[in-house]
Amino acid sequence: MRPYDIIRRKRDGGMLTSQETQTFIRGYVAGDIKEYHAAALLMAIWFRGMETDELAAWTREMIATGDVLEFTGAGPYVDKHSTGGVGDKISLPLAPLVAALGGKVPMLSGRALGHTGGTLDKLESIPGFRVDLDAGEFRQVVEDVGCCIVGQTGRLVPADKKLYALRDVTATVSSIPLIASSILSKKSAAGVRGLVMDVKSGSGAFMKTREDSVALARTLVELGGALGMRVHAFVTDMGQPLGRWTGNALEIRETVDILRGEGPADTAALTRRFAAAMLVLGDLADDPTDALSRVDGAIADGSGLGKLREMVVAQGGDPAFIDDPDVLPAARTVVPWEAPRTGVITAANTERIGEAACVLGAGRNGIDDAVDPAVGFEVLRRIGDQVSASEPILMIHANDDKRLAACREKLAHAYTIGEEARTPVPLVLEEVS
Amino acid sequence: MRPYDIIRRKRDGGMLTSQETQTFIRGYVAGDIKEYHAAALLMAIWFRGMETDELAAWTREMIATGDVLEFTGAGPYVDKHSTGGVGDKISLPLAPLVAALGGKVPMLSGRALGHTGGTLDKLESIPGFRVDLDAGEFRQVVEDVGCCIVGQTGRLVPADKKLYALRDVTATVSSIPLIASSILSKKSAAGVRGLVMDVKSGSGAFMKTREDSVALARTLVELGGALGMRVHAFVTDMGQPLGRWTGNALEIRETVDILRGEGPADTAALTRRFAAAMLVLGDLADDPTDALSRVDGAIADGSGLGKLREMVVAQGGDPAFIDDPDVLPAARTVVPWEAPRTGVITAANTERIGEAACVLGAGRNGIDDAVDPAVGFEVLRRIGDQVSASEPILMIHANDDKRLAACREKLAHAYTIGEEARTPVPLVLEEVS
Repeated sequence: MRPYDIIRRKRDGGMLTSQETQTFIRGYVAGDIKEYHAAALLMAIWFRGMETDELAAWTREMIATGDVLEFTGAGPYVDKHSTGGVGDKISLPLAPLVAALGGKVPMLSGRALGHTGGTLDKLESIPGFRVDLDAGEFRQVVEDVGCCIVGQTGRLVPADKKLYALRDVTATVSSIPLIASSILSKKSAAGVRGLVMDVKSGSGAFMKTREDSVALARTLVELGGALGMRVHAFVTDMGQPLGRWTGNALEIRETVDILRGEGPADTAALTRRFAAAMLVLGDLADDPTDALSRVDGAIADGSGLGKLREMVVAQGGDPAFIDDPDVLPAARTVVPWEAPRTGVITAANTERIGEAACVLGAGRNGIDDAVDPAVGFEVLRRIGDQVSASEPILMIHANDDKRLAACREKLAHAYTIGEEARTPVPLVLEEVS
Repeated sequence: MRPYDIIRRKRDGGMLTSQETQTFIRGYVAGDIKEYHAAALLMAIWFRGMETDELAAWTREMIATGDVLEFTGAGPYVDKHSTGGVGDKISLPLAPLVAALGGKVPMLSGRALGHTGGTLDKLESIPGFRVDLDAGEFRQVVEDVGCCIVGQTGRLVPADKKLYALRDVTATVSSIPLIASSILSKKSAAGVRGLVMDVKSGSGAFMKTREDSVALARTLVELGGALGMRVHAFVTDMGQPLGRWTGNALEIRETVDILRGEGPADTAALTRRFAAAMLVLGDLADDPTDALSRVDGAIADGSGLGKLREMVVAQGGDPAFIDDPDVLPAARTVVPWEAPRTGVITAANTERIGEAACVLGAGRNGIDDAVDPAVGFEVLRRIGDQVSASEPILMIHANDDKRLAACREKLAHAYTIGEEARTPVPLVLEEVS
């Protein structure tokens, strides 16, 4: 079987056989099948898509190229993954909350890149916190505490690493089946058996249209089913930054607020709904209503916050910030960013706002850039709010005047101020399970 | 400008700017743009196509990567190119015929590959004939004799060489704009200003459907126009082997027959029509009727045959075969291949017949295989002919029993014998100019 024939079949709209998929993925990781073969096949997949069974075989082959984490406890091993956004810190309060209610959350997370933030960078603003546990330590913390959040651990899905690097330079990232296989191969290899997916949609999301987001959500649920993983997908609005705070240490602050029941309406609501869905996926609650009341209980009785403390300690961090957030890194200056005119905020270019946070130092443009834990935004006004000219929409937390100027430039056209409020977009646009 | 953005624009159906095309082609030949970038872009072009202006810019950039042959004579520099078939030796009588009538034919030809024959291999069955002239010798023979047929000479269009090798392994050969740019970049760099294109269509052609063949013909004519080259395209039937002989020395034999006015009806007709079209493109005749009568004159008075003799001598060959074809290499055995049953020949799988000639030794599977000049077929019966069981359809000229057996196996289902003759397909299916 030549790579040529495999590429041609997909180019012509055919379904790859599992034999072809095996030859291709194994050969690619071994280096027998070249980057140019893979680039051509990925572009053909971008145009032709993949059927569920075909995609499941593809994903299984990806998983088989590396190690698989085996958890031997009773579980249930449940997790949540977001396609990424601005101000999206939901994983941070969510994992301890679910752990407090009996779930085991083996969470492999990522770093900030481009306009989106990264859970690992946020956690690293906690003094001493380690995200580089080895596979043994990771399993131990998951079993003992109930949740653990780390970066890539062990040699999980090397095929994904190699394919993703190639997709990134060949304009083939935005393919729904390839996105789905990338996410679920890693989750499956990490031992996850129930997954809540948060597919972000809108100006700050990777998927800009609701149609694409729903298509990705459906593909994730179907592929999960074919792989023996229960997936419950939410399509949620990323038309503006999520929550009150954007920035690494600032989002740790909001995490504590959410677990105290004092978080902003949007992040609090998503945390509760995702936690409830994870309990249902893990058979830890009878139904969504029962699940939600348990979640509210774990917030009210402080057990969620207690789990956060346990996890921080287990991962080497100093939990002092939980009682005194002011021990977290803070920026030198806090300056307002004002509304350019009087009116109603009708839209936000969230990608630009994320880029503005990135140039401030909260994110990174290249994988080797360092992030500044202290900087970011406090979001004071949201879409639908009335603002007067010169009234602050954001407070900018900055450490460097040059970066602050660059940030202001990025923000220049980030908000649209109109005459009349538009119909508000609901936070949860769609649920697929 | 990143290769990523160029790939993405084409992926999304946009037109590449000339700046993007320049960056891509130059960077690719220089090695700054990688094979995987090019593979992804070529696949995106396969799906999205290219507009005429875009394709002209792309082709001009390809030409600019190498040398360009400048002819300083009065010309007219006219040529003919075929997309390749079985038994297609039209170039061989055509070039001398046009030269005899005042045209200058600087013909760069190819070798046999897969089921199709190659003009250079056919010429090399003439003792002493050299196809490897350098650019200076090539120009000299074109000016002195009026025609010269060689392989790649000088460093013409290195971008095509590199792109073609990549297309060949990434299933992106069959893209009409990429085929057109490959052909016309080389013709333009070789100094050709008027080109007759023979786009083969049917079971022995690269383009299997008439629709695709016509689309390629149109693209060639339009692209030629944009490049300042006059192109006249014929779409001709390749539903069965062309002419009476298939095989290297055997086709040289038929070449002499055609120039003597004694060729088979189909190859004689195509030679006459293409020659006439070349005269019109080169302003050497007033109209097709005038052109055809001149062509017939050059056959009748032997001046076409005289030019063949001159060209052979100028390229180092022994012209004795013109007067005595039996000096050409001949096969050891000549055996019949019989009709499997009585009936009418209704169809031929010409690709299989070409492959059968190839396994016999007339062609090559890899670029480094040697060809046997002597072997091939004499085609005795054609589509529409009545045959009796065990009556020969072909005579096989073979030098090796094992190869003969493999050839017979290939031929097993190559002809369809039916009850009633179908409506015959015309030889020239379409003309585009």
